Amino acid sequence: MENILELLNQSPLDNKKLRETFAQMNAVDIADALEQLSDDKAIAALRLIDDDDFAADVFSYVSPEKQQMLVEGLNDAEVVGIMNELPVDDIVDFIEDVPEDVGKYVLDQVSSEKGALVDRLLDYPEDSAGSVMTTEIVELSPHMTVKDALSTIRTSGVDKETIYTCYVIDEDRKLIGAVTADSLVRAGLNQQICDLMDINVISANATDDQEELTNQFRKYDLIAMPVINRSGHLIGIVTVDDILRVIEEETTEDFEKMAGISPLDEPYMRTGVLKHAQNRITWLLILMLTAAITGAIISTFEDSLAVLPVLVAFIPMLMGAGGNAGAQSTTVVIRGMALGEIVIKDVLRVVWRETRIAIICGIVLGLANYARIWLMHDRNGTLALVVSLSLVITLVVAKSIGCTLPILAKTMRIDPATMAAPIITTIVDCTALIVFFSIARIAFNI
Amino acid sequence: MENILELLNQSPLDNKKLRETFAQMNAVDIADALEQLSDDKAIAALRLIDDDDFAADVFSYVSPEKQQMLVEGLNDAEVVGIMNELPVDDIVDFIEDVPEDVGKYVLDQVSSEKGALVDRLLDYPEDSAGSVMTTEIVELSPHMTVKDALSTIRTSGVDKETIYTCYVIDEDRKLIGAVTADSLVRAGLNQQICDLMDINVISANATDDQEELTNQFRKYDLIAMPVINRSGHLIGIVTVDDILRVIEEETTEDFEKMAGISPLDEPYMRTGVLKHAQNRITWLLILMLTAAITGAIISTFEDSLAVLPVLVAFIPMLMGAGGNAGAQSTTVVIRGMALGEIVIKDVLRVVWRETRIAIICGIVLGLANYARIWLMHDRNGTLALVVSLSLVITLVVAKSIGCTLPILAKTMRIDPATMAAPIITTIVDCTALIVFFSIARIAFNI
Repeated sequence: MENILELLNQSPLDNKKLRETFAQMNAVDIADALEQLSDDKAIAALRLIDDDDFAADVFSYVSPEKQQMLVEGLNDAEVVGIMNELPVDDIVDFIEDVPEDVGKYVLDQVSSEKGALVDRLLDYPEDSAGSVMTTEIVELSPHMTVKDALSTIRTSGVDKETIYTCYVIDEDRKLIGAVTADSLVRAGLNQQICDLMDINVISANATDDQEELTNQFRKYDLIAMPVINRSGHLIGIVTVDDILRVIEEETTEDFEKMAGISPLDEPYMRTGVLKHAQNRITWLLILMLTAAITGAIISTFEDSLAVLPVLVAFIPMLMGAGGNAGAQSTTVVIRGMALGEIVIKDVLRVVWRETRIAIICGIVLGLANYARIWLMHDRNGTLALVVSLSLVITLVVAKSIGCTLPILAKTMRIDPATMAAPIITTIVDCTALIVFFSIARIAFNI
Repeated sequence: MENILELLNQSPLDNKKLRETFAQMNAVDIADALEQLSDDKAIAALRLIDDDDFAADVFSYVSPEKQQMLVEGLNDAEVVGIMNELPVDDIVDFIEDVPEDVGKYVLDQVSSEKGALVDRLLDYPEDSAGSVMTTEIVELSPHMTVKDALSTIRTSGVDKETIYTCYVIDEDRKLIGAVTADSLVRAGLNQQICDLMDINVISANATDDQEELTNQFRKYDLIAMPVINRSGHLIGIVTVDDILRVIEEETTEDFEKMAGISPLDEPYMRTGVLKHAQNRITWLLILMLTAAITGAIISTFEDSLAVLPVLVAFIPMLMGAGGNAGAQSTTVVIRGMALGEIVIKDVLRVVWRETRIAIICGIVLGLANYARIWLMHDRNGTLALVVSLSLVITLVVAKSIGCTLPILAKTMRIDPATMAAPIITTIVDCTALIVFFSIARIAFNI
């Protein structure tokens, strides 16, 4: 990598040597190198790649900002060369990421046929199967022989990733089967496709959510999945490399939401400080203002605190334990739902489980806490009992709310991850305080 | 699905109808159905699948407990039939999950050649590339023609997933190139493999951590990756379906650790309440006992609280805001490191970023908080200033500690996710209290 960057930063460029080096390199690594070059150098480097198909491949791996710069820096003919070879779904990704006029310029450069396809893909809702699929597919018919099929594949010119599984359609373009590349390789040349094909094809609808697709890929060990429209016509395929990217995005979003961060579009290092601050401040503000409620509750019990100031020292522990216990339940439930292991109708079973888990944890924590207080606070059994009892109740409340809210969110079609730790913490904090002070008032008669 | 379960629960079983139905079904779905049957019925159902290869496929998708039951319920000949067809890596997974005597019994049933392979795979460290790879590969030599290669593939009998990419080795069994199935299909029959092969192969070492592999798959859009040993010899491949499972496991583990839960081995619903409680209680206990430190700090300042009891009401807000702000930083850094976007040497740049983000968030929150207190607490400017100033300092401390600890953990080869929210919260809580009371003492002269 250092080597290629050195070569690329020479001036004038050693074109011959660079061409040789590029020929040995992977498109992803060349894209990585371009990313680190000045704009002029990056354009000059991309021009050295004579094979438009490979240039398009490299282009598809650079960041959206660099892509925009390249499109603006190359001449029309060069842009046409790349766009002709760029798969439709990559053009769609590009257009979604750049300003409207750049997108329009690119659409003007591609063939009208390709432009129509791009337009159709742009119409699918964000995060739907239709928006991640590629439309470059090999379509076979059931009465072809293997020989015909192989020649169809050879002449189709579609990208490698999309022929590992070929799909079979009937006269109405309805999906009726799938043939894997390996069965074609193994079969006799005169065998018929309909005898080889698997009729049990797992497919997605164009409007299906991309997150549902990830669970299907995982469950059935798929490397591609055909996408059909409402009439059952094959309109594209989603490949496993897209799914890896979807999983990465969706998981990162879940992590961010669970930590009270509005999802970022770009990797951490490429996002500005101001944008980071903006994405974090909303939740911090909301939580700070709701914490005022906690403060108000404490103020209500100021008289009790005046009589027994030692009570204050247990507030952080109670709130902390409740918050953590709730976050545990929320996390396992959100993750379980993302993986399809927990579904909405499990709600009662989950609550019952979490309640029992909370009681066990509560008893253990309560006993440990009782012992600690009894030892450290002059063998004060009543104080120890009040705190431990509050702890058990707080844990049960925390865990049952913690597991219910994400499921509730799902029934209301809200992303369960938004119901995560921060919100639960606030609810649990209030509960912990009210329980604690109420029990203390009764026990100490204050 | 209901349909097949109905058929399977009839007695006596309608063997003919079941055979027909199975023939139309996917191995994953049949495994799902077996999972829901009584032991006897599941064994009877598996016996109806005459094709050992398909039976092995179904077997590979049922849960470890059900697999053990099936092995114990089938006779020796039937176990041999399945084990002969089961890929080596699936046998390894099975042996790792069942009691030793069951594993030994199965090893006795397989051929000595297969047994030796299983033994070798069992030797690789858990979570290494060697432990997830499959050893059933097609090896081509550079001077084969495409025709030879296709006949090698045809006669190899290896599973479909492993021939999408074939690997080329030299006389010393060293990996020298890769050929994709589609280039074989497209090439002329007399072309030589060395002219078709890609010499730029991304490979893994057998001892590489599986998490590193996931980033390579994502970066290079791979569907398979060859695994080599220390001498550069090809010893197996990791396929993308294994990687999907690794990503699922590793991500779930990160979620769990970040919520202070010891990682579970089984899905939520299949884990007992006692096991759940056990996996959560360690962290809850540790955090409860460290919260005693927070309590002790508050006790130290009991005099100040006696003079100005209103201060208590701001403790939850300060601790909450600090905890949340810290958790945000920890989460983005842990996730960034898991995806390879943030590496150890970025530590100073990350801290500098987080500090600036903290200052921006701190000022906004501080102003909002100042306004709220000034309005609600009788225009008390000093109190508002003390709380807001403490808030800004707490946020800066929270975010800089929050981003540093996971990176520090990584340098010490500890999983960054263990340094997550719960620990940070405790550190931040203490800081917030000390800062708040110190500023309050100076400002109010108490």
